[in-house]
Amino acid sequence: MRAARYYGNGDIRIEEIEEPTVGPGQVGVDVAWCGICGTDLHEFKDGPIFCPKPGHPHPISGEDAPITLGHEFSGVVSSLGEGVTDLEIGQHVVVEPYIIREGVNTGPDSRDYHLSPDMNFIGLAGRGGGLGEKIAVARRWVHPISNDVPLDQAALIEPLSVGYHAVERSGAKAGDVAIVGGAGPIGLLTAAVLKAQGATVVISELSPLRRQKALDTKVADHAFDPREVDVVEEVKKLTDGRGADVAFECTSVQPAMDTLVEALRPQGVLVIVSIWGQRGSFDMQQIVLKELDVRGTIAYVNSHPGTIKLVEEGKINLAPFITGKIGLDGLISEGFDTLINRNETAVKILVSPSGKGL
Amino acid sequence: MRAARYYGNGDIRIEEIEEPTVGPGQVGVDVAWCGICGTDLHEFKDGPIFCPKPGHPHPISGEDAPITLGHEFSGVVSSLGEGVTDLEIGQHVVVEPYIIREGVNTGPDSRDYHLSPDMNFIGLAGRGGGLGEKIAVARRWVHPISNDVPLDQAALIEPLSVGYHAVERSGAKAGDVAIVGGAGPIGLLTAAVLKAQGATVVISELSPLRRQKALDTKVADHAFDPREVDVVEEVKKLTDGRGADVAFECTSVQPAMDTLVEALRPQGVLVIVSIWGQRGSFDMQQIVLKELDVRGTIAYVNSHPGTIKLVEEGKINLAPFITGKIGLDGLISEGFDTLINRNETAVKILVSPSGKGL
Ligand SMILES: [Zn+2]
Ligand SMILES: [Zn+2]
Repeated sequence: MRAARYYGNGDIRIEEIEEPTVGPGQVGVDVAWCGICGTDLHEFKDGPIFCPKPGHPHPISGEDAPITLGHEFSGVVSSLGEGVTDLEIGQHVVVEPYIIREGVNTGPDSRDYHLSPDMNFIGLAGRGGGLGEKIAVARRWVHPISNDVPLDQAALIEPLSVGYHAVERSGAKAGDVAIVGGAGPIGLLTAAVLKAQGATVVISELSPLRRQKALDTKVADHAFDPREVDVVEEVKKLTDGRGADVAFECTSVQPAMDTLVEALRPQGVLVIVSIWGQRGSFDMQQIVLKELDVRGTIAYVNSHPGTIKLVEEGKINLAPFITGKIGLDGLISEGFDTLINRNETAVKILVSPSGKGL
Repeated sequence: MRAARYYGNGDIRIEEIEEPTVGPGQVGVDVAWCGICGTDLHEFKDGPIFCPKPGHPHPISGEDAPITLGHEFSGVVSSLGEGVTDLEIGQHVVVEPYIIREGVNTGPDSRDYHLSPDMNFIGLAGRGGGLGEKIAVARRWVHPISNDVPLDQAALIEPLSVGYHAVERSGAKAGDVAIVGGAGPIGLLTAAVLKAQGATVVISELSPLRRQKALDTKVADHAFDPREVDVVEEVKKLTDGRGADVAFECTSVQPAMDTLVEALRPQGVLVIVSIWGQRGSFDMQQIVLKELDVRGTIAYVNSHPGTIKLVEEGKINLAPFITGKIGLDGLISEGFDTLINRNETAVKILVSPSGKGL
């Protein structure tokens, strides 16, 4: 089968590799669509970061580069390993792409397996990836999704789960006013979850294309350019002078974060969603005198079922976030190039590893 | 009667003023002891900050400088205003020294009256103060305390409530490992609440005198000098490598805060207790990848009853935190001078406005 394999910085190769064998407790999946993630670009441009270097195998997967990329994917069950009896061949599924150490509680009640030591991701640190035609995944990480949800949209469940978990972390409720700083893919998908759960959503974003996307997809009630509008004043107007209930930092840019801190009401919650390469600073008086909560969020933890439900119920329409569809051969020349050099025009570019979806 | 009155920066005068009249719904209190607070020193050295300047009356109290100082006090009920029927003359009381706008919910269920607009404090923005012999206070803000608790210790209920609320904000539970950065008065009293509630307490503090105080008063299980000991390593040793459950920032010093962030376990909580004069910065990756919560805390909100209970039950002994007792005439020459120039030796200096306690 064909797969995109990461060898190191700037070196991703489309290769012919062996099909995975489906072991006991595993599910064989024919990958339908796999999204390209900012993390993939990061590995390509600045990595290896998550990917284990040659000669330095990941302590859980035991694998090192080259590894198959792709962690945002949907597919169809093609075979069931020994002991797997609760899925059917032909069933649509998505994968929660975790590599977690044996013995960690990954049960439905766990709130922290995603923070366990040496945690990593399928498609970054081994165990195959969504940028290959087929994959074998432990049953625990396979989530069924209604066959009524198109498989291209299902490939966005993974990044949508990131937004879902960020919203979980905020404690946002229906009727809350939320401000999202940044309308890149994660900002938009976080806004989508907020809207689906009944919040009023304000987006602050420099790019006119991204603001337009936020309004066109109806995930934002208001999208402001912080260079032209006093975003804090606008939020105050919407909240009788009170301030926003929750805020989501999706830019890793200092002035954007300062705006969110200013815009929050007393006892408001700021969730840091983006990964910062540098330190970030705060007006500590605002944190103290408004009793703010600043909460980090990373990935997802038992968030897939709730995320899938929002999509199955039609509360989130993922179709407008798909801005491109390519095959494996276009991965770098079309996919990575667009996302690196013209990223305002794209939200999610999907890859069909087999080419069958194109 | 005699009182210490704040006229402005560097200008506090001990004066003869009229006794307050006890209006309907108010309680007349003969002040027994009043602590000197860092906020009082701040008004004296750098103010006015909370105190309203002459000609700029506080919007709720309607008063401007000179105002009577003192917000950490205990006393004995001396008279009951019309309609006050649930207290007795001779009853020991402490005051929750709030000035809050009419109409704000200050009921027992409220979690946010302390964050209401224009909130200020008795003893800083009007309505008398604990550095006068007598005061009349609205019944809402008067809390009875057992006559078995000595009145000098009762004067520490107010700063202890600050620690109590900080611990409430952290969500700390019995069995947790807590790290407190800084063993000044608020750090020590926060540690006292943590110990009383069954936490293991680690203190990081530069001053040997303060470390010794933390150990002598038994509010800390361990007190480390961060210049000599790798505090993060010590916390890891105490927690099987996991890290502290909760941390309390009581220094407003950047490297101290960095140590707390490092020492926290995944999903740990950092409470910012101190008021920072400058911005503070964070290693954002730790906030995100450990899903930390950074929470501000200010003063107290319905915290007095729980705080009083801990002291009445003997779970906290406030006696060792009283390091001096003076009269009004020594307020500046003994009290302020010690706290400003030899503050490592002092925790709480109490003033007897009438001189009767001396
Ligand atoms: Zn991703
Ligand atoms: Zn105080």
